[in-house]
Amino acid sequence: MRILLIGASGTVGTAVAGALAPHHELIRAGRQSGDVRVDLTDMDSVERMYREVGQLDAVVTTAGNVHFGELAQTTPAQFLSGLQDKLMGQVNVVIAGIPHLRDGGSFTLTSGITAVEPIKLGTNATTVNAAIEGFVRSAATELPRGLRINAVSATLLTESLEAYGPYFPGFEAVPGERVGQVYRRSVEGVCTGRVYTIWQ
Amino acid sequence: MRILLIGASGTVGTAVAGALAPHHELIRAGRQSGDVRVDLTDMDSVERMYREVGQLDAVVTTAGNVHFGELAQTTPAQFLSGLQDKLMGQVNVVIAGIPHLRDGGSFTLTSGITAVEPIKLGTNATTVNAAIEGFVRSAATELPRGLRINAVSATLLTESLEAYGPYFPGFEAVPGERVGQVYRRSVEGVCTGRVYTIWQ
Repeated sequence: MRILLIGASGTVGTAVAGALAPHHELIRAGRQSGDVRVDLTDMDSVERMYREVGQLDAVVTTAGNVHFGELAQTTPAQFLSGLQDKLMGQVNVVIAGIPHLRDGGSFTLTSGITAVEPIKLGTNATTVNAAIEGFVRSAATELPRGLRINAVSATLLTESLEAYGPYFPGFEAVPGERVGQVYRRSVEGVCTGRVYTIWQ
Repeated sequence: MRILLIGASGTVGTAVAGALAPHHELIRAGRQSGDVRVDLTDMDSVERMYREVGQLDAVVTTAGNVHFGELAQTTPAQFLSGLQDKLMGQVNVVIAGIPHLRDGGSFTLTSGITAVEPIKLGTNATTVNAAIEGFVRSAATELPRGLRINAVSATLLTESLEAYGPYFPGFEAVPGERVGQVYRRSVEGVCTGRVYTIWQ
């Protein structure tokens, strides 16, 4: 397959590239690195990316930031930034990507364990990830030509333990290699409208 | 209790007012009518509303619009409008409302059955409602002084059958009176972080 991986340089993106690259033609996109540069919050940039890369069999996004902070001190602009970046960024990828996917192609988005397991300072993360899962649930009913859409929701990666471990007390980490395989399951599988969860 | 009901003139708001008014002091807020006028998408307007109404025991929101339309034809601005209005509007109500609620007070927000049951043209609705439920799940862990927060997710109201029935084929409607009682259960009850669902 010809697969566009957006967010390829991140921790999850690297794991996904490791799982997909041996089996597929992989085009890497990112904000600051990759074969193609893209700002997912800018629809013009997303459309330019698709014109550059041509027809695809699958699109995988592992990009997007959310706001962390105490809810009572969060400004509307801070809360909105997570919606704009991780949620709208991926929504833009899907809406603009429909005509560029071959029949039966797929989108695989990224949510996260905080969708169902709130963590300290993480209300924006929970909101954004729950929204992504809702989006996938409904978008699956609308996509034409046998296109599929799923989300992958992973817990903390072993590779991120040092950076983010303190925010996830008592959460077991999973190796990136396992996470990458779940993305491969979404890309090469038959399901749509699913959230693939990865935690112990 | 002293309760602020935002969105009081809508179909759900009218049902909630009917359930709460016989038992409580009710202050009605709305975009174009009510004791207080407010634009929930404007944090200055939300803060002005709270200064006008003074200390409260509960806040109930039944306000907010989402975008309906085919996903492939939806613009980022249209998709964002639902996030700005129904989601950020209610988020603003919570963030700004914390200091105005007495100890043990509560917020009751409104999501909707489309959070879990996608309908035609309703991907924005599903996304927004899922986000609201995520927000409630996490905000409940953060609120100080025994404050509580829940969401109510109703199916179509009997009173809305004529206007919206065609969008909900095979969904049983419930009378507004029953829906109002569920909001009362959230306001006068003990739970937090819950989504109260109302459908058959």
